[in-house]
Amino acid sequence: MVIPAVPDTLLVEKLAVANRILYRQGVVDSFGHVSVRHDKSPHHFLLARNMAPALVRRQDILVFDLDGTALDAGGQRVYLERFIHGEIYRARPDVQAVVHSHSPSVIPFGATRQPLRPIFHMCGFLGEGTSLFEIRDVAGDTDMLVSSNALGAALAAALGSRSAVLMRGHGSTVVGASLEQAVYRAVYTEVNAKLQMQAVALGDVMYLNAGEAAKTAATNETQVPRAWELWQREVGPVG
Amino acid sequence: MVIPAVPDTLLVEKLAVANRILYRQGVVDSFGHVSVRHDKSPHHFLLARNMAPALVRRQDILVFDLDGTALDAGGQRVYLERFIHGEIYRARPDVQAVVHSHSPSVIPFGATRQPLRPIFHMCGFLGEGTSLFEIRDVAGDTDMLVSSNALGAALAAALGSRSAVLMRGHGSTVVGASLEQAVYRAVYTEVNAKLQMQAVALGDVMYLNAGEAAKTAATNETQVPRAWELWQREVGPVG
Amino acid sequence: MVIPAVPDTLLVEKLAVANRILYRQGVVDSFGHVSVRHDKSPHHFLLARNMAPALVRRQDILVFDLDGTALDAGGQRVYLERFIHGEIYRARPDVQAVVHSHSPSVIPFGATRQPLRPIFHMCGFLGEGTSLFEIRDVAGDTDMLVSSNALGAALAAALGSRSAVLMRGHGSTVVGASLEQAVYRAVYTEVNAKLQMQAVALGDVMYLNAGEAAKTAATNETQVPRAWELWQREVGPVG
Amino acid sequence: MVIPAVPDTLLVEKLAVANRILYRQGVVDSFGHVSVRHDKSPHHFLLARNMAPALVRRQDILVFDLDGTALDAGGQRVYLERFIHGEIYRARPDVQAVVHSHSPSVIPFGATRQPLRPIFHMCGFLGEGTSLFEIRDVAGDTDMLVSSNALGAALAAALGSRSAVLMRGHGSTVVGASLEQAVYRAVYTEVNAKLQMQAVALGDVMYLNAGEAAKTAATNETQVPRAWELWQREVGPVG
Repeated sequence: MVIPAVPDTLLVEKLAVANRILYRQGVVDSFGHVSVRHDKSPHHFLLARNMAPALVRRQDILVFDLDGTALDAGGQRVYLERFIHGEIYRARPDVQAVVHSHSPSVIPFGATRQPLRPIFHMCGFLGEGTSLFEIRDVAGDTDMLVSSNALGAALAAALGSRSAVLMRGHGSTVVGASLEQAVYRAVYTEVNAKLQMQAVALGDVMYLNAGEAAKTAATNETQVPRAWELWQREVGPVG
Repeated sequence: MVIPAVPDTLLVEKLAVANRILYRQGVVDSFGHVSVRHDKSPHHFLLARNMAPALVRRQDILVFDLDGTALDAGGQRVYLERFIHGEIYRARPDVQAVVHSHSPSVIPFGATRQPLRPIFHMCGFLGEGTSLFEIRDVAGDTDMLVSSNALGAALAAALGSRSAVLMRGHGSTVVGASLEQAVYRAVYTEVNAKLQMQAVALGDVMYLNAGEAAKTAATNETQVPRAWELWQREVGPVG
Repeated sequence: MVIPAVPDTLLVEKLAVANRILYRQGVVDSFGHVSVRHDKSPHHFLLARNMAPALVRRQDILVFDLDGTALDAGGQRVYLERFIHGEIYRARPDVQAVVHSHSPSVIPFGATRQPLRPIFHMCGFLGEGTSLFEIRDVAGDTDMLVSSNALGAALAAALGSRSAVLMRGHGSTVVGASLEQAVYRAVYTEVNAKLQMQAVALGDVMYLNAGEAAKTAATNETQVPRAWELWQREVGPVG
Repeated sequence: MVIPAVPDTLLVEKLAVANRILYRQGVVDSFGHVSVRHDKSPHHFLLARNMAPALVRRQDILVFDLDGTALDAGGQRVYLERFIHGEIYRARPDVQAVVHSHSPSVIPFGATRQPLRPIFHMCGFLGEGTSLFEIRDVAGDTDMLVSSNALGAALAAALGSRSAVLMRGHGSTVVGASLEQAVYRAVYTEVNAKLQMQAVALGDVMYLNAGEAAKTAATNETQVPRAWELWQREVGPVG
């Protein structure tokens, strides 16, 4: 087994902060998880042990290889769905961070097999729409969890080159080119879903077109630090 | 009258915690109640005196027999609907805890006589659907309260072997094989109801099928401690 | 001008508490007001000076006669709509407290001229339904405010013997036989409105019938102190 | 370059307070901004540097001319859309304050190109309805941002003499004759949008007519200080 160098202390701390931000922003509840690719090895990633994101501290962050094996769990329980992260990092070299959640407003879109589309400029990253992962097609009747490398790879295939994939009867997974960007996208995927539900009920919706989506994504994601500064302040120091 | 041994102190404390969790999670407001079967006598259960769940302390927990008679009320008022608990414990030996609430998103389903169905894997316990208790069929025009053993038995009959029963014009009752499980189910019954309302408005909903529901229930309920740890931390120490 | 005896200190304090409860429960925002009939004179009532309910302290409570004249304002501004209170006390000797608000979920019912009906047992007091006050019929195009004794009397006439009246394009007014009951009813009128909107979208709604409404109102209103104890605790001491 | 006199210290502080109120009231999140016209020069305005509104302190407030050039940025980043403010101040001498936001309930109206109309008396300022700014008509596929004087002028033209303009796929901009009034209007534009969505789903909506809107606007805006007092208290002292 390859043992990578120790990850950057600030990255570990930032991942603990990301866990707490996602709870405070309503993306995760007691469930869901966020990972970041190891800064010293592209074949490893950092993810908390099996626990509620709101409680994650630095010392709860473990190192995993892309097969989902924890290098340093020391007997602690790990997330059943760590394969989501490993297989996406394997399939998508551009991805540096992954958020898996049961973000509430997104669930009805998965359950009705309708894609999210970008309703405003904060969500240009949804310009390619969302794809749907139907686990029943891949594995029949299951406990819906992505609990193996094979299922993780199938999810990564459904994601393709997109920013987000809906998981019918389960939740969604969102990726980014940095931890901050993945968190930003997870927060605004929830916002977009809520607004899209309301707009569809109200009338005929004009979404961002492809050109608008690409341009808003490029511009708006330069503004991510503005949100991160506030969110980090609000969660306060991690233990 | 049979007097059971003193219940476990930690169970009494856990029941006070459960009351506060249910308030913080929006399942109960000033009304609703949660009980647990007595750990030393299957013919008794623990339930707070008549008060708002958010304020329950250890010393507010009383012991009741299955007929709904408090052994140690000492003149304190008891809940008008304690019969819900006693009769369900009598009818369902597998049940160790009962939550009765006016959980808001569930009310519209009772009022329109539509069942909850599991919209995502957190709610596999709803796989058998919910049944409907129509008190008007049992007792004509009433104050809607399950205020006698006969009404409690009728509610238990409507519940059958399910995890949850809707009560038209009133609320719902959810059961579990442990206090933690019953609280988990009550919280996610509310979540499911809210998401189901949104999904129905959005399109044609694909619910978990029977196989998925059974498997998700089996897996997910092993994860209940993750939620309980957070919820307990959030309510803090009980008085 | 008749000067009544000094009102009971505890009643004045309770009215300050009621103001804060209504804010915390989402019935009022910066606007809306609650009054109570003077305990020593049925021809007078207590109401705060013109200010946000959340900030009301004991010393902000003034005494008014039924014409809406403040006896002790000492130059302080009074609410433009104090006539709502005076005219309802004049028309309804059974009423001891009045809440006027822009309780949010109730507004769409007034705007679409649809009555609230009791969707669950907590709202049996809505058994007679709500009436609609259409100020345009009474006074043509106005600023919508009940800013005179004539308009207050018209509102009281629309209320009739009911517990609540909707005011199109404005809000609602709820009454009770005690301050606690009026606050309870205002809180649960908002709850009922939100649930009724959701239920109507979901299917064919079975409301409480007249017998159920009357019986639930009788029983449930004996439980008002349970809610009041919690609400009072949550707002803490008033200044 | 004309350098105006130093702005009033209390106005600078009030603008910092306004930023925090808009966050607390849910009008802005990490994005959106509020400005006020310079009290000593109608050709300048005050606006924070590029940052989350919730964190704005007095020292973060900069002075801009109407072309959107900051006089005193000292290398700090400024908002990409400062042109919204400058061009509206240029076109509307009556306007003293401008709020630009992604106020959530308003987004679905822009996306479906439906105007807000006043649903209750708190929103008489919407009596002329809202206009729609369709940036695609003006500039083709863009990043949706009002990032130049030309786009700012086009937005100001779409606003016309109204209180608010919807921006499709983006948000909205609300103006007022004082900072307090603009904040009040931004808060109640969000309230109106939420209630209008609910009312439209419920039935046939009777909005305020032109006479009612004008009269409610005149009366209600005299009550703005009541809201401001509470809101200011809730955000506490700015740093």
